[in-house]
Amino acid sequence: MAKLPQTNAQVLLKSRPQGIPQAEHFEIVQTPMPVLESGQFLVRNEFLSVEPAMRGWVNAAANYSDPVPVGGVMRSFAAGVVVASRHHGYSEGDRVMGMLGWQAYAVSDGSTIRRKVLEDDLPLSLSLGVLGINGVTAYFALTEVGEPRPGDTVVVSTAAGSVGSAAGQIARLAGCRTVAITGGPEKMRMCLEDFGYDAAVDYKSAGFVDALVQACPRGVDVYYDNTSGAISDAVVRHINKGARIVICGTASVSNWEPWPAGPRVERHLLNKAARMQGFLVWDYEHRYEEAVSKLAGWVRNGSLQYREEILEGMAAAPDAIAGLYRGENFGKRVIRLQPQD
Amino acid sequence: MAKLPQTNAQVLLKSRPQGIPQAEHFEIVQTPMPVLESGQFLVRNEFLSVEPAMRGWVNAAANYSDPVPVGGVMRSFAAGVVVASRHHGYSEGDRVMGMLGWQAYAVSDGSTIRRKVLEDDLPLSLSLGVLGINGVTAYFALTEVGEPRPGDTVVVSTAAGSVGSAAGQIARLAGCRTVAITGGPEKMRMCLEDFGYDAAVDYKSAGFVDALVQACPRGVDVYYDNTSGAISDAVVRHINKGARIVICGTASVSNWEPWPAGPRVERHLLNKAARMQGFLVWDYEHRYEEAVSKLAGWVRNGSLQYREEILEGMAAAPDAIAGLYRGENFGKRVIRLQPQD
Repeated sequence: MAKLPQTNAQVLLKSRPQGIPQAEHFEIVQTPMPVLESGQFLVRNEFLSVEPAMRGWVNAAANYSDPVPVGGVMRSFAAGVVVASRHHGYSEGDRVMGMLGWQAYAVSDGSTIRRKVLEDDLPLSLSLGVLGINGVTAYFALTEVGEPRPGDTVVVSTAAGSVGSAAGQIARLAGCRTVAITGGPEKMRMCLEDFGYDAAVDYKSAGFVDALVQACPRGVDVYYDNTSGAISDAVVRHINKGARIVICGTASVSNWEPWPAGPRVERHLLNKAARMQGFLVWDYEHRYEEAVSKLAGWVRNGSLQYREEILEGMAAAPDAIAGLYRGENFGKRVIRLQPQD
Repeated sequence: MAKLPQTNAQVLLKSRPQGIPQAEHFEIVQTPMPVLESGQFLVRNEFLSVEPAMRGWVNAAANYSDPVPVGGVMRSFAAGVVVASRHHGYSEGDRVMGMLGWQAYAVSDGSTIRRKVLEDDLPLSLSLGVLGINGVTAYFALTEVGEPRPGDTVVVSTAAGSVGSAAGQIARLAGCRTVAITGGPEKMRMCLEDFGYDAAVDYKSAGFVDALVQACPRGVDVYYDNTSGAISDAVVRHINKGARIVICGTASVSNWEPWPAGPRVERHLLNKAARMQGFLVWDYEHRYEEAVSKLAGWVRNGSLQYREEILEGMAAAPDAIAGLYRGENFGKRVIRLQPQD
């Protein structure tokens, strides 16, 4: 067993934000290194995840999980290596990914572990991105809810994001025409060159709707929606008979309490015999390895591209979620812990 | 072959309505009795159907069928008996149901016939109601889109209507708790006593939402929606995880052009991993007999109740659609043609 430091660096939720959590809502503290009890093991985190959903985890409104308590370690996925174990199922050197929190060391009894990371030939950080919740979400949401068929037109919003870029590429691998909705010239370029979309449209441009219609000459069969709001309203108007709208995220709407108003979709869904369906990746937890296996195969043979943005050191954590909402990131955002963290 | 009259009574669309078609938009005319060509047969209609969807059939906006032309026979389902045939597949005496129009006699080459009515032990009018599009719609929309499971709570709007009452009863037969949304004391009574709902709530009462919540102590698993609008908004707020919202009609919203505003459902569908899906019975045309066979069995053994409202004579036709929208009917509205029609 490696020699452990005396203290553990942790990012705590200092106060509860209204809306997007900012740097000021967090504080980094040093706490005593935990002592393992029987049935526990200690993980040295190498990468901490940063994702939009974490905004919901710190807000008071009941969402699909209880909010992080003020004063508690910020909830997050993280990936690391087991450095000490009193658990028969985990050994020193095991690579694991799970809900380990924004901290350097995490004690687990196994219940917070999502999986052992077995892809030793691939970077550990991928278990937080394209081989993690992002990729697994894209895989099941697209294939199980979107049900793409060869020749379908599949439109993806936040198409350059870590979920969207995977969804678009999986749709292309399924034989679909893929259309990206993204913002700004650099993300347009990424969508077309890095992620292989057949077309890309810029929601920030004045001619967005015309460009969208032009990019979908045969209408829209699957809409993989990460945004909601005006972007989605435009796509929904152009769905085909029998279309599937996958609600995977609502990034463009900042507040859902009270529910904002928008155009009613009922008549349109009826006339098109179309469906709109929400997707929660937790419902597919029992099939996680099935998705990772597919995704890892595509990563290895080069047919699934990904992009990571690696922030260095725990000091980057407090502002990292706010940065996502400022749209400053390109690719899956992770924090790589440093020896001194 | 029975002796045929010289003329055929027909209801023509006289002018195109904006909104709900009124009596003044139709006229009854006598036209020469058609002469059969080879491959054709003549149906003497006994019952003409009256249904809310006919409003859409006469309006100019492209819906899911072309509008009835001004001066054309009003499109409708009808049921009758073959009285002359030059078609090898149809013989005198065959009972048929199809898109035969609001007229006493209809020529067909078979393409307008939906089915031969083989349930000789049951009234022919049922082929326009509980054993017709209404029943078949309720059957497939509930079972294929709603996917009811034993113990589920199923809420039905326009629960006393010809589609809703069938949907509610089929849900009860599937082992569900069924909750009716309807308007006024007589329809409340029908829902509880005639159609066997476990609970009924009156959307016209001030305490509607509270009553709805009380009637669904375990939340809502399936919402069979015939109304849209404020009624549906109340139900949607109380759906359970994994709920299915079947969009079968939008009777409470009078105008969809432009799309009216309502509360955005995306976040809620996401949080609940729920779906909202439109249903068009035409998509199940190839499985029509499967549904009729089930429904007829339930009618025969008394487990599926229905209610008809029979208007006498073609003179009742012009005002019959408007009457539906005035809410004056109880049960599936049909027009029984008289000998002089």
